[in-house]
Amino acid sequence: MRTVEWEKGTVRLIDQTKLPWELTVVGYRDHERLAEAISKMVVRGAPAIGATAAYGMALAGLTSEAETMDALRSDLADAAERLTLARPTAVNLVWGVERQLQLARDEQWTTADEIRAALIREAHAIADEDVATNKRIGAHGAKLISDGNTVLHHCNTGALATVDYGTALGVIRAAHEQGKQVHVLVDETRPRLQGALLTAWELERLGIPFELIVDSAAGHFMSTGQVDLVLVGADRIAGNGDVANKIGTYSLAVMAKENGVPFYSVAPRSTVDLSLPSGDQIPVEERPGEEVTSLFGKSIAPEGATARNPAFDVTPHRYLTGIVTEKGVVYLPFDLGLRRVMEGEEA
Amino acid sequence: MRTVEWEKGTVRLIDQTKLPWELTVVGYRDHERLAEAISKMVVRGAPAIGATAAYGMALAGLTSEAETMDALRSDLADAAERLTLARPTAVNLVWGVERQLQLARDEQWTTADEIRAALIREAHAIADEDVATNKRIGAHGAKLISDGNTVLHHCNTGALATVDYGTALGVIRAAHEQGKQVHVLVDETRPRLQGALLTAWELERLGIPFELIVDSAAGHFMSTGQVDLVLVGADRIAGNGDVANKIGTYSLAVMAKENGVPFYSVAPRSTVDLSLPSGDQIPVEERPGEEVTSLFGKSIAPEGATARNPAFDVTPHRYLTGIVTEKGVVYLPFDLGLRRVMEGEEA
Repeated sequence: MRTVEWEKGTVRLIDQTKLPWELTVVGYRDHERLAEAISKMVVRGAPAIGATAAYGMALAGLTSEAETMDALRSDLADAAERLTLARPTAVNLVWGVERQLQLARDEQWTTADEIRAALIREAHAIADEDVATNKRIGAHGAKLISDGNTVLHHCNTGALATVDYGTALGVIRAAHEQGKQVHVLVDETRPRLQGALLTAWELERLGIPFELIVDSAAGHFMSTGQVDLVLVGADRIAGNGDVANKIGTYSLAVMAKENGVPFYSVAPRSTVDLSLPSGDQIPVEERPGEEVTSLFGKSIAPEGATARNPAFDVTPHRYLTGIVTEKGVVYLPFDLGLRRVMEGEEA
Repeated sequence: MRTVEWEKGTVRLIDQTKLPWELTVVGYRDHERLAEAISKMVVRGAPAIGATAAYGMALAGLTSEAETMDALRSDLADAAERLTLARPTAVNLVWGVERQLQLARDEQWTTADEIRAALIREAHAIADEDVATNKRIGAHGAKLISDGNTVLHHCNTGALATVDYGTALGVIRAAHEQGKQVHVLVDETRPRLQGALLTAWELERLGIPFELIVDSAAGHFMSTGQVDLVLVGADRIAGNGDVANKIGTYSLAVMAKENGVPFYSVAPRSTVDLSLPSGDQIPVEERPGEEVTSLFGKSIAPEGATARNPAFDVTPHRYLTGIVTEKGVVYLPFDLGLRRVMEGEEA
């Protein structure tokens, strides 16, 4: 199944807080509970939450009791606000919601029910596009991987972080499907261990060889010549190419540059936010300190200890080798390249 | 109590695998079991294992049934080999053992029992020296901390990593005792969480304010101007100033340099190994992958997942601002400065 699916008025999510031990699917029948699920990271990964939010808008349409188009549009605006607040950093969330709002505003509709039906169709379209987009990203990115390469990967950017197939992990998957030998060094990705729990699970199922490492060991493997390429995802890419991504990405990028290891951010164009001139304007989500001080309900610090827990960091574009999109790989100067692919041209 | 103590033929260690939940003391009556305790990290931290090994040699003397000095020296040589193999990276272990072997070889002794007694006295001297050394290190290092500074710290370098007082954490403690306001950002230090479990526990008891962070967040805090100084320990310092220390140190040093944040390694001279021209020759211990794939006996990765687990990394000296020793702070050129302090001069 896909990470996010629609079945008769229910949004179904693979519960990513239960993996790799249980493959559980949870159903949501209103956008309010779905927004909570996004906040609690039942679903995570920028493209996946973009599609989930689009389905959330479809749910909001269905559950609204509005009889007129204006009343429905007003309910949708409220739902949009609630969904957008679920997580602040990934722009895909805003993108999915905005696309639905714009659709609802279209002048072609004559009844509220027409809008309701259109929102469901559009959510499906967004989900299908995401899968197709990721496969194109994979095809472009796989060219960067040579037979026998070791790729360092951070967080989870696989099928679980998207509707299906994945972004950075999709690139690795595409290279593997082309018959290339690829070995993956998987950053465990504290605090929530998406690498150890989700990426390792996906790689095992795909039959791609990997080894886990603690996040702080990545630099050691780069400086000792054991990494050919670093591939990470993105939660928001500013107009100048600065990338917000899972905490730890910035350090990887600095270390990669220092050691002459190519470093690519891999993301669909829905992650690009040209409205922001640089990464300084990207809001970085600070999550509860308990994600650091406890693990699976067990405390891993003395009682009373507090923690800082920024969920993301911003990597200045000067550390990037390139940005892999469904329109090809964007290289320096990133501002021009990003503008070009956002206008629909090939990179 | 001290981290390592001697009581009537028993070496007593604070069991660091039980902290912060239980303050347990374990007694060892032979060097074989003590070596196992070092391997299993019941005691850890380069200076602490140096003193523990010296006490281990005293134990080996006591438990040996040798009646002649030659027979005893032969037993001591075997014990030295066993203790040295317990952990490969920290040179203090070798240093503590070698100092005892040399003492045993001294021509002043006329009976095996004289040597046995001398080994116990020498172990006490080494332990006492360690505490005095750390206090001198603290006094030198505290000058680097200004009132109101935030210091980033990795692993544990406190009283628990030494006989008492600590090295890098001893510097923070000294600044705190001088009345300076110091805030500590504590790297949790995966995989064994010495920061979250041990350093947090020590800072709480000392009343020094701190916040925990995941290791991969350190770069973010540096790049956003929230760190004034980075202080770490050392497990072995080569003749050119390259530093082997807990995995993750290298990344911190690169990030500190990139962001103009002063970065100091803090260690007694027993950590300096002038026999090695550079860090390339330092053996890096690779520990079991289970330290990464499970935590407190619970698996945190899919069944069958394997991990790489280098316990240390090597930081090339070009990333260091200075090395704080009991003879003062050594700056560039490190080779000359280290030679000077090893000859007993002030830095």
